[in-house]
Amino acid sequence: MKAEILSIGDELVHGATVDTNAAEIARALLRCDIEVERVSVVSDRFADITGAIRDAMSRCDLLMITGGLGPTQDDITRDGIAAALDLPLEMDAPTLERIEARFASLGRPMPESNRVQALVPRGGEAIDNDRGTAPGLWVETGSQCIVAMPGVPREMRHLLEDRVLPRLDRRQGSACCYHERLVHTFGHGESFIAEQVGDLFQRDGEVRVSITVRTGVTTLAVRSQGTKAVHVREAVDGLAELIVERLGKWVFGRDGASLEATVVGALKASGRTVATAESCTGGLLAELLTSIPGSSAAFEAGFITYANEAKTRQLGVPADLIAAHGAVSEPVAAAMAEGARRIAQADFGLGITGIAGPDGGTPEKPVGLIYVACADEEGVRVRECRFSGDRALNRQLAARTALDLLRRRLARESPSS
Amino acid sequence: MKAEILSIGDELVHGATVDTNAAEIARALLRCDIEVERVSVVSDRFADITGAIRDAMSRCDLLMITGGLGPTQDDITRDGIAAALDLPLEMDAPTLERIEARFASLGRPMPESNRVQALVPRGGEAIDNDRGTAPGLWVETGSQCIVAMPGVPREMRHLLEDRVLPRLDRRQGSACCYHERLVHTFGHGESFIAEQVGDLFQRDGEVRVSITVRTGVTTLAVRSQGTKAVHVREAVDGLAELIVERLGKWVFGRDGASLEATVVGALKASGRTVATAESCTGGLLAELLTSIPGSSAAFEAGFITYANEAKTRQLGVPADLIAAHGAVSEPVAAAMAEGARRIAQADFGLGITGIAGPDGGTPEKPVGLIYVACADEEGVRVRECRFSGDRALNRQLAARTALDLLRRRLARESPSS
Repeated sequence: MKAEILSIGDELVHGATVDTNAAEIARALLRCDIEVERVSVVSDRFADITGAIRDAMSRCDLLMITGGLGPTQDDITRDGIAAALDLPLEMDAPTLERIEARFASLGRPMPESNRVQALVPRGGEAIDNDRGTAPGLWVETGSQCIVAMPGVPREMRHLLEDRVLPRLDRRQGSACCYHERLVHTFGHGESFIAEQVGDLFQRDGEVRVSITVRTGVTTLAVRSQGTKAVHVREAVDGLAELIVERLGKWVFGRDGASLEATVVGALKASGRTVATAESCTGGLLAELLTSIPGSSAAFEAGFITYANEAKTRQLGVPADLIAAHGAVSEPVAAAMAEGARRIAQADFGLGITGIAGPDGGTPEKPVGLIYVACADEEGVRVRECRFSGDRALNRQLAARTALDLLRRRLARESPSS
Repeated sequence: MKAEILSIGDELVHGATVDTNAAEIARALLRCDIEVERVSVVSDRFADITGAIRDAMSRCDLLMITGGLGPTQDDITRDGIAAALDLPLEMDAPTLERIEARFASLGRPMPESNRVQALVPRGGEAIDNDRGTAPGLWVETGSQCIVAMPGVPREMRHLLEDRVLPRLDRRQGSACCYHERLVHTFGHGESFIAEQVGDLFQRDGEVRVSITVRTGVTTLAVRSQGTKAVHVREAVDGLAELIVERLGKWVFGRDGASLEATVVGALKASGRTVATAESCTGGLLAELLTSIPGSSAAFEAGFITYANEAKTRQLGVPADLIAAHGAVSEPVAAAMAEGARRIAQADFGLGITGIAGPDGGTPEKPVGLIYVACADEEGVRVRECRFSGDRALNRQLAARTALDLLRRRLARESPSS
């Protein structure tokens, strides 16, 4: 089956927003053994939309569209599909009722403008959207199929995973099988990781491995496809496990794992808690930990102490320690971690102090110099980091270094995990 | 001038890598008054590449290509351009010398495979690349132009900014001018905003308006293009100002503004500071504020108090207040904001307590119920919010609601801003 993706929106084609939906849809389709052959992005202009739909339908069997299903005047994807396929739009009464009910549940009348969201090209179907007012569209013409979903990533994901993929899977039958495993490491770059495990695989082998890096997390993706599901799974899983074995302690998780979920999981498994003390990361470390549902069992409290007085007042960091070593120093990072642990009565304390940039650097203490500390009942460890990213990346790297320090501390206790 | 972008690479079309180059190129071209009308992404397959180039050249005047210029077998963009334009590839001696010199400067001989990087379609030119071995390509045929750049973002950016844009700018002269203004609002959805201002513009008018929503921020983009720069600017700026006037206090900024930057800017302008007390947002509010360079002048300290004891110990929220009303309640949000303000000795205190989900909801206090408070020397205001997103979105909306409360509090003092 030949598939294409069409993303619609001025903000996408002008680059104000990076289109992440297309990549997400392409990955999801691969799980159903459908390979995307082309992605197109066009503006909200009617002629651009109809032109792109007609072009795609001259090449592919399945066209996945996102964007332009909202209630406002610039949302004309419905009209574009209808025009490209030469079908009239018809009001779908059950869909209109569902949209009205959604507004009623929010205690508001449905604005007149939302009526258009219940229009469906003749012969097509609306796809229920539990996360918003914009239903998706499913239109089949002969052997070809157009699926349209809202552009809001959260709503798109819901429709894709809950409504569209199951239906595509049934439609597709069992032709070709695709399998993928991800191995996540922290603290080393692409070339280092490639040097460690490069001999385990060939670039053009049956099982392909690609390496990507994002905010300090280096991920190996092991992929293969073929007609025998058992064979494909064995080959991919086998190579992934060889890689995990070779990389050892650098590996923090597989597939959907994140550093923060791994740390929260390990804390909850051992019945312990953490408190955080942050200067230059300004709450990012706490935000990552508490982004995990159920983290309240593992996260005690957090302190964001930008000013020196705040470090002393909130965390009990001695003022003369700051005066002697400076706020960005190993002893202050250690005292912050210990203070957070003590005051919050947590099992672990994490402390971060540094210069995220772009300003505030000096020749002795340049931008990117950040100290990360992990305190427990036995004492405190501090890591000195010298990052070379911008403010946002330096903050991300520092927060994740703290998570990794705690992960490795917890892993030493239970080497089986 | 009609421009298109073509991104080439298996990893892009399969979604393993999100294509950020296209958005960056589109934004850069807009600065030269060139509007991108379509972005296409195809695999490394020869037929896909030549097909996509031919399609684009049937529609546009300028085609910007990225990817597939490396030295390996899967890098066939050069061949694709030559085939699509029916031009032979010729070895460019000065370019070959430059690639050899680059390897020599690294103390290595040039691998034979890199020779292909010096091939140029007849009549075209290589574009020097100071950051890597892959030169770009510039090929003109009649009034049309193809520019190819490497896919590595760092190298692409170098070629784009240092080599391609200056040349396009000269080539472009004063043909067509593009102008855009963005108006950002908070707290109301797409349909509400459209109802307020929809009468000010027509869907297919000369000046187009599109509306997008992201984490509670509803943005109106006003755009137009034409041959008379003054006329285009006047039309766009005029409509944008009419919209700003109509929407009044809901507007927090224009163009590149963010809620957090607006708040930090207003605090710094008035020489005042804020402290934060967060429960369900877990540090996100502080993280947003401190993501702004120079925010240390405006951000005093932050408290993340998940447990009830932490609210009492760190913020002085009376235990009997929590017992009487529950941790998720208006009085506790108010006490958190006041506690943060008092303890950090800040001018403003922001407090957030609520149930972000997915667990922890009850019939009386469902998931999504979040109280947001803003305290100052005169007292405290609390807003009750009922969000219907997932955990991540509810947290984002709550943190931004707090920012907007403070923004409006600051704006009331200086109505001119």
